[in-house]
Amino acid sequence: MTSFPEVRIAILGASGYSGADLVRLLALHPAARIVALSGERQAGRSMGEVFPHLAGLTLPKLTKIEEVDWSEVDVVFCALPHGTTQAVVKSIPSHIKVIDISADFRLTDIDSYAHWYGHPHQAVELQAEAVYGLTEHKRESIRKARLIANPGCYPTSAQLPLVPLLRAGLIDPDEIIIDAKSGVSGAGREAKQDSLYGEVSEGIHAYGIAKHRHAPEIEQELSSVVGRELKIVFTPHLMPMNRGILSTIYVRLTPGCSAADMRHTLENTYVDEPFVRVTPEGTAPSTRHVRGSNMALIGVFADRVPGRAILVSVIDNLVKGASGQAIQNMNVMLQIPETTGLSQIAMFP
Amino acid sequence: MTSFPEVRIAILGASGYSGADLVRLLALHPAARIVALSGERQAGRSMGEVFPHLAGLTLPKLTKIEEVDWSEVDVVFCALPHGTTQAVVKSIPSHIKVIDISADFRLTDIDSYAHWYGHPHQAVELQAEAVYGLTEHKRESIRKARLIANPGCYPTSAQLPLVPLLRAGLIDPDEIIIDAKSGVSGAGREAKQDSLYGEVSEGIHAYGIAKHRHAPEIEQELSSVVGRELKIVFTPHLMPMNRGILSTIYVRLTPGCSAADMRHTLENTYVDEPFVRVTPEGTAPSTRHVRGSNMALIGVFADRVPGRAILVSVIDNLVKGASGQAIQNMNVMLQIPETTGLSQIAMFP
Amino acid sequence: MTSFPEVRIAILGASGYSGADLVRLLALHPAARIVALSGERQAGRSMGEVFPHLAGLTLPKLTKIEEVDWSEVDVVFCALPHGTTQAVVKSIPSHIKVIDISADFRLTDIDSYAHWYGHPHQAVELQAEAVYGLTEHKRESIRKARLIANPGCYPTSAQLPLVPLLRAGLIDPDEIIIDAKSGVSGAGREAKQDSLYGEVSEGIHAYGIAKHRHAPEIEQELSSVVGRELKIVFTPHLMPMNRGILSTIYVRLTPGCSAADMRHTLENTYVDEPFVRVTPEGTAPSTRHVRGSNMALIGVFADRVPGRAILVSVIDNLVKGASGQAIQNMNVMLQIPETTGLSQIAMFP
Amino acid sequence: MTSFPEVRIAILGASGYSGADLVRLLALHPAARIVALSGERQAGRSMGEVFPHLAGLTLPKLTKIEEVDWSEVDVVFCALPHGTTQAVVKSIPSHIKVIDISADFRLTDIDSYAHWYGHPHQAVELQAEAVYGLTEHKRESIRKARLIANPGCYPTSAQLPLVPLLRAGLIDPDEIIIDAKSGVSGAGREAKQDSLYGEVSEGIHAYGIAKHRHAPEIEQELSSVVGRELKIVFTPHLMPMNRGILSTIYVRLTPGCSAADMRHTLENTYVDEPFVRVTPEGTAPSTRHVRGSNMALIGVFADRVPGRAILVSVIDNLVKGASGQAIQNMNVMLQIPETTGLSQIAMFP
Repeated sequence: MTSFPEVRIAILGASGYSGADLVRLLALHPAARIVALSGERQAGRSMGEVFPHLAGLTLPKLTKIEEVDWSEVDVVFCALPHGTTQAVVKSIPSHIKVIDISADFRLTDIDSYAHWYGHPHQAVELQAEAVYGLTEHKRESIRKARLIANPGCYPTSAQLPLVPLLRAGLIDPDEIIIDAKSGVSGAGREAKQDSLYGEVSEGIHAYGIAKHRHAPEIEQELSSVVGRELKIVFTPHLMPMNRGILSTIYVRLTPGCSAADMRHTLENTYVDEPFVRVTPEGTAPSTRHVRGSNMALIGVFADRVPGRAILVSVIDNLVKGASGQAIQNMNVMLQIPETTGLSQIAMFP
Repeated sequence: MTSFPEVRIAILGASGYSGADLVRLLALHPAARIVALSGERQAGRSMGEVFPHLAGLTLPKLTKIEEVDWSEVDVVFCALPHGTTQAVVKSIPSHIKVIDISADFRLTDIDSYAHWYGHPHQAVELQAEAVYGLTEHKRESIRKARLIANPGCYPTSAQLPLVPLLRAGLIDPDEIIIDAKSGVSGAGREAKQDSLYGEVSEGIHAYGIAKHRHAPEIEQELSSVVGRELKIVFTPHLMPMNRGILSTIYVRLTPGCSAADMRHTLENTYVDEPFVRVTPEGTAPSTRHVRGSNMALIGVFADRVPGRAILVSVIDNLVKGASGQAIQNMNVMLQIPETTGLSQIAMFP
Repeated sequence: MTSFPEVRIAILGASGYSGADLVRLLALHPAARIVALSGERQAGRSMGEVFPHLAGLTLPKLTKIEEVDWSEVDVVFCALPHGTTQAVVKSIPSHIKVIDISADFRLTDIDSYAHWYGHPHQAVELQAEAVYGLTEHKRESIRKARLIANPGCYPTSAQLPLVPLLRAGLIDPDEIIIDAKSGVSGAGREAKQDSLYGEVSEGIHAYGIAKHRHAPEIEQELSSVVGRELKIVFTPHLMPMNRGILSTIYVRLTPGCSAADMRHTLENTYVDEPFVRVTPEGTAPSTRHVRGSNMALIGVFADRVPGRAILVSVIDNLVKGASGQAIQNMNVMLQIPETTGLSQIAMFP
Repeated sequence: MTSFPEVRIAILGASGYSGADLVRLLALHPAARIVALSGERQAGRSMGEVFPHLAGLTLPKLTKIEEVDWSEVDVVFCALPHGTTQAVVKSIPSHIKVIDISADFRLTDIDSYAHWYGHPHQAVELQAEAVYGLTEHKRESIRKARLIANPGCYPTSAQLPLVPLLRAGLIDPDEIIIDAKSGVSGAGREAKQDSLYGEVSEGIHAYGIAKHRHAPEIEQELSSVVGRELKIVFTPHLMPMNRGILSTIYVRLTPGCSAADMRHTLENTYVDEPFVRVTPEGTAPSTRHVRGSNMALIGVFADRVPGRAILVSVIDNLVKGASGQAIQNMNVMLQIPETTGLSQIAMFP
């Protein structure tokens, strides 16, 4: 337990669901010590008042960001709303490592950022240095990075199966359709009518059809794999569950390739990865099987339509899709064994 | 109220969810009188014991099928398990009209039936006369039919948007992908581990990937529209809601056609239909908007990928996907105004 | 159908859940014509935009209250927030009948109102004339009333079993404990953190312990039955369901009385009531059995502890607990048969 | 990590929800090594097939009980159905410690057992030696025990607040009313109609009114505290959540005592307990705050009715109400620090 040097951690935006899950996970991380928690509107309150499930932990009070004493901090996790993070990160002393869970540093193209987020980027030079933190595929860069753009939840669930298949040339890059279903926690803890129990329970609907901001993020990363611009079809749905994303991905096989080839490639890619597993043939993954854990599961299925295949990918959007992957990235950055603090087993039922 | 001749109705398989919903709907149908209810394992019990929400109605007791006095019956609704209906329907006197909610008479190809259902059909001659009851598109045949094969829930949600588009030649028949999400009631009231609260709540999974029996049903009907065999990609998902199916349908446009053309065609097709409505541009339908009603809603969206479009189709699987469409078909068969008894407004929240 | 004179109806506060359920129910009421719908923040929008499940109905647009043309209105349903109704009702011409779903006119004692609602009542003279609309027990007064204070949801579920038992002297008025469980729709459609899916699903908590505003309402009415002041124990709980209240009521029997006496009294009281039913011996009612309907179910159970009994009472909080009972009261006021427009059968599952 | 001697563990009945949660928790217990898992109907399958959320763990296959090699086992957890455990436990070599999660050894009175469970006890001599494992109140006996009767879920939630209050004489032993609300996992993973999603979701009902088997268990333990027989009122309810029990407990104060005295006593009792916490004044506990963890929370409230008070007690029924308390008891029996392997933090949302 004491073999790691202590890492002093600040969490900015700790009053949201991602912030709370960072605390839940870091509380069992043997190297982590949380020294600061910020939450603008909750400043002055204890974390236990804001999140009673964390009331048993010894934690600093919530403060305003400007009250954080940076001299005591080694790593910052930013779980602030999109758009507000840029200015904050600029103000953090440069010896501190930053892992940003927001979308602010994910799009490398300034114009694309401005187009999708509706305003020019406020920290262009930082964006240039930011490393996209899809851990399994960016380890070398993450190890050397100071600023991590932690991937979005949908993009994580989509890229884990697609990156190896595109790299291996097994599927047609121009025929990728991602039908994703998300739990509600992805919408945050803000009081919004669309997130009310009555509006979410006992039903499902698609949203952001053909205009969700995670589409350009997925396209950027997959394009960089294939070496040219590609476009994907991406439709997210909101459904009644707290945690979880399931992406059903429809692909066309490269002529001569099969679903068995896909399975083989994915199994080989992830055989030594602690947090990605390909389910056995014929077994479909469920979001319930990863709830609360940092695991990603991938199922591979031949389709009845010749030349086509179906992938099913599941993660917990708050863990592998946000806080868990962020801690995984911290471990990589600090050369702590990657699974440290991430041994939570999925909770079912 | 008394302007219709009384229709004496028997419901076989009344102890399942579809049977109960037939009773819920028919109880407010001014022409309907329920004279017999069968339920093999529940024979001898009152409907109110089996379904306490119906306890306030005056209804016959549940009996075994062989106890039904056919001389008192004008119309039979069959809500029996797949495979068992065939023999039963053969035994029903031929002057009685039959609306079968099971899958037994849906596949017109004997070999296809045997392949998908695992046994030879037991009533081949009846199968030949059965009319597939997708009301909006088969009214003329339904009017003259004696035996209706009521469409499956997934097929209803898929065909309502696709049939007019294929007929108009707006979309590529060989590039249809249907990603469907269903509530749990579709699995029936049988005690199955897979339908337990703990196995269904707070999560989602795909099932029957590339091998669900509704795929050949959809293909049969769409093939007959385009005049040649086509194959579709179809993936059903089980999610935590009682009622509802949402199908997200990915299509490739015929060169020169647009999503606006699709919208135009669908609006024209359904402008006078009481139970199908195209949602306004930019508005995505939700299963919550049709819960408990016989309505189908269809949304049409241009995709970001040029030449592609997205359809979203929702129904209540127990109503438009089963009992409601069955009653709609009865109304057509008996020349009762089609909306009679089907004015239930969706219940939200 | 045309045998009733048309009743022209305005619904104030139509953009909330109670307002929407008034529309759902009134749309099938043969005498009702909705001529005005108000919703301050939604003024100018169609009801179908605000509540897509109602988009198929022909309805007036939402307006501000001051835009309502009172000369066209016979009956007003007020579904406005507590506290704001008083001034509005004062401004409604006195020939119009008013049924108020808010709590504004329920407490007859001015000081009690001021104590529990935190401000002096703004329409004291109207409060004096208001009739408490627990239909089954106040029919004579309702018939002659101009202004109805529609009972709260919890009070309705508590009083239906308790009023006859107290009147018959079967239970000890000083030993009544009401443990109530409510669905979320009772909290309204306002964007509140406490009503978010993530805060309500998959759990339960008590709230307003020993200080909920429905306690004095219940006490007022039960006190008037026994002819002296009594106090009750009342604990509401919030749980993950949209509709429904279940009250488990613990009582001490008057010496010499039994649970069988209780059952007998309740059955006799409600034998001819269309909307209240005592469940068979040994059968516990569920909120699922009344969902969407105006029914109340009451179960009666002897306890193992001698001299004690347990009552279980269920309603749909939006129907019998709000909009349905309001329409029932309208029917009584206008001498329309009481069940008119209220024949919705509970929807299960 | 290596400071504990390894404990070789067999779990009998590992294919149920309690068995799965034992595995989830023990997998992170540094001293535990699972050497045998039994599941009669699943024998031969891997745990990952039966519970895919556990597929990432290295575990023995499920076997029949008779295949367990007792020479390799130090501790047995029995999570078998009630009634079947007795014979099994008799057959386990006596040097092995046994923690029984079923109800088989909880009732010390043979006649009471026969009355409530419908058959004579099959292992009377073992029953005599069994120690009731409410850890916080039986530590001394547990330390010396060979066979632990792990408390029921409802009884755990009821006793934790009541035992100290009765011991201190603060409340009337003859006026205790326990209104309990449970999640569905308590009913197990058996395929039962009553546990189906459609029968449980979106509603609530009471069950086993005045005849639930946990009543005599609570009475036995509370009677032993006060030194004479007492009877309680106990009503369980089934509601739509997977995990959690909330007990709302209505008590009459001993004259001269106050809710503040109750709070004081409970805080003092549990101040050093790692798994029981009294919530701050005015704060009501929620089952969500303990989900997945071994924590119990207790809220104390003065009532409006003079001389009365209200307690709210929450636990996760599968953890503190079953598997977690079982492991806590194992730790006590083996003199391992009591919190070992039980540091899971509640998962919210």
